[in-house]
Amino acid sequence: ISDSAMFAAGIPSILASLRGVSYMQVDVCGPSADLHSGSYGGAVINPATELARLLASLHHDDGRIAVDGFYDRVREWEPDILAQMRELPFDDERFRAETGAPALGGESGFTTLERLWTRPTCDVHGFLSGYTSEGAKTVLPSTAMAKLSCRLVPDQEPREIHRRIEKHITQRARRGITVKVTYINGCRPWRADVRGPLLNAARRALLSVFPNEPVIVGEGGTLPIVTELEQTLGTPVLLAGFGLPGHNAHAPNEWISDENIQLGARAIAALWDEYASEKRNGS
Amino acid sequence: ISDSAMFAAGIPSILASLRGVSYMQVDVCGPSADLHSGSYGGAVINPATELARLLASLHHDDGRIAVDGFYDRVREWEPDILAQMRELPFDDERFRAETGAPALGGESGFTTLERLWTRPTCDVHGFLSGYTSEGAKTVLPSTAMAKLSCRLVPDQEPREIHRRIEKHITQRARRGITVKVTYINGCRPWRADVRGPLLNAARRALLSVFPNEPVIVGEGGTLPIVTELEQTLGTPVLLAGFGLPGHNAHAPNEWISDENIQLGARAIAALWDEYASEKRNGS
Repeated sequence: ISDSAMFAAGIPSILASLRGVSYMQVDVCGPSADLHSGSYGGAVINPATELARLLASLHHDDGRIAVDGFYDRVREWEPDILAQMRELPFDDERFRAETGAPALGGESGFTTLERLWTRPTCDVHGFLSGYTSEGAKTVLPSTAMAKLSCRLVPDQEPREIHRRIEKHITQRARRGITVKVTYINGCRPWRADVRGPLLNAARRALLSVFPNEPVIVGEGGTLPIVTELEQTLGTPVLLAGFGLPGHNAHAPNEWISDENIQLGARAIAALWDEYASEKRNGS
Repeated sequence: ISDSAMFAAGIPSILASLRGVSYMQVDVCGPSADLHSGSYGGAVINPATELARLLASLHHDDGRIAVDGFYDRVREWEPDILAQMRELPFDDERFRAETGAPALGGESGFTTLERLWTRPTCDVHGFLSGYTSEGAKTVLPSTAMAKLSCRLVPDQEPREIHRRIEKHITQRARRGITVKVTYINGCRPWRADVRGPLLNAARRALLSVFPNEPVIVGEGGTLPIVTELEQTLGTPVLLAGFGLPGHNAHAPNEWISDENIQLGARAIAALWDEYASEKRNGS
């Protein structure tokens, strides 16, 4: 599968991990209708305030996720892969400028690439409650909702993560509101075995057309087909793509260089010979 | 001014307090555009998560407001007024049923009426961020906003409360976002002097047409005209209204009983004589 990018121009890249996802919606209900915040405020639990409190409880101050058992199934990465990842010429400032955020941030003790490729997350995608137009309306809203998901790393399970978040939130909900945490969808995370004959063949094939040794990279996003193919066909899946950083994946003006189309096609052609030869030698 | 209600049928009521309000909007900005939560999640500070954390920081777990100096100007109530308030036949369960909430709640150590009439609040009126429609969209939102206000009690000042909240929030904002707390509008709280000649006259006038002694009540809402009248005319303001609980104030099907219109008119007519006689005796 070539639905991925090279780490940098001239550096062929084998994608060794994808994060999974567990997506859910949180609904908080309080009074049966919006109330006047003067006549009722202070004596009725506010669903918007409560939802904010529940969402805030999902993280510790150091960025670590505070949900009981959340990290239980997180598998350690091989130290040599981590070491190689730390040596990749990644530019935090260029990445920050790409996002437009005033600064980067995340779980303490990890580099940006580790945060993106090797660590799970819990992100709010949106929330809505009460009055949100111009000016002032002094309503005490009857409901509040949020969309959130966790990006997962091996061997976290989407439905188990949903159950853990659901338990965390419902246990902390105050009397005076009801809360529901609904599973919307999910996908398992994925890690390649970077030591088998397929990967050896891929390394040689890539090196035969690109000027540098291939590097192992991760990806923070999700490709649900990968685990499906592995499970259904019972065979390893190789991911090596030929896009370049800034190629606007899935966005307007997505592009790929002419040169990389040529080089990529030659590398894939070479892969079949290399893999056949690996299999012959290995058998 | 008769823009208030009686505590119960047959119990004439003098309104001795109104809460003020300080209304503001909180805007959090992070990345310059919404980002893919897989490709960026974990390494970029999420404005929605941050806004939730900042809103959650406004209260302690016991419902007390956690903003430095927030209670500094709160004036103690006279013990005899508080004692009379505790004796009013207020039915928490009826009030709860009226709201439709599963339970009441608020600042620890206070009754429902004290929470509504004598204590300041901090309520979220609404918030909005990112994706809030059906199903799933894995966006890391670039902005998040909330409307909130504090109901104030004497002698809290609307603009001072805004500055305190602004300081609380901006001090706690992480690098990776910018935050703005914009004052929208406000109104000072009000307390009547319940011991002067005007109040004595009102008590006698009300007792002359209703079957019970008048009670002193408070109100959680705001009537900006009251402080304006006092300041502009330099004279005390009396609030005694003749609506009944459940009269749907400001709502569809607002109503007042024929009997209370008659009794109220007679009480107000009596008030002028009583007040004139008070002034004669007092001078």
